[in-house]
Amino acid sequence: MRQMSVEERRAFLLEGTRTAKLGVTRRDGSPYVLPVWSVLDGDDVVFTTGAETVRGRALRRDGRASICVDEERPPYAFVRINGSATLSEDLGEMRRWARLISTRYMGEALADRYTERNAVPGELLVRVTPRRVVAEADVVD
Amino acid sequence: MRQMSVEERRAFLLEGTRTAKLGVTRRDGSPYVLPVWSVLDGDDVVFTTGAETVRGRALRRDGRASICVDEERPPYAFVRINGSATLSEDLGEMRRWARLISTRYMGEALADRYTERNAVPGELLVRVTPRRVVAEADVVD
Repeated sequence: MRQMSVEERRAFLLEGTRTAKLGVTRRDGSPYVLPVWSVLDGDDVVFTTGAETVRGRALRRDGRASICVDEERPPYAFVRINGSATLSEDLGEMRRWARLISTRYMGEALADRYTERNAVPGELLVRVTPRRVVAEADVVD
Repeated sequence: MRQMSVEERRAFLLEGTRTAKLGVTRRDGSPYVLPVWSVLDGDDVVFTTGAETVRGRALRRDGRASICVDEERPPYAFVRINGSATLSEDLGEMRRWARLISTRYMGEALADRYTERNAVPGELLVRVTPRRVVAEADVVD
């Protein structure tokens, strides 16, 4: 096992259509994990989510988030980012990021359609700023 | 989007070397997500972990777990299992499951080596019994 460099970590997070697995804590203290489409803004992980979804409500109540992205084949690798989320309802900003995210995950040809869907009132733009990062490559070597 | 059948969900969870992303809640209430190697025993998700790791300590304190497995390409799909973990230190049982897990993720030729590493005193066999399951295929269709 070895630690990724900062550049390697960034490339790993942005490779292809890898999804981020977002972990939040529900009101009753139970954990909740789901995949999100995300991109980076500097070191921040950026995604959109519905304000009234379980994840949206959890992040509005308690901004702490844990994000995991991994490589599912030998020799395996993963990045985990624990940090705090800041939320925005600014539709212009949301639209800009939703377009980048839609392009990454659905391709340029379908980006408009998914941007329209994901940058509307009732959605939140979420930005997770890292507090602690673990990035391990060659986990089983 | 459509719900997977029970058979489809099982096949999805067991496909290739897909990893499970395990979410737990730390003592301070913050979320924590990491990839684990797992197999199924009936509907239970089974994996091993060090008793003194963050995830091991969290599960010993509060057995609630959230597990997410996803397909990272269009049309995207995911299974999330929220449930409760039961823990065992029985080395015989641990060895049996560790061998199945090692075979899945490292192949038959290397299974012995990883079984020896993962079924030793200080490790726990964890079994997450589903309480609530969501299994969605064709997420963007």
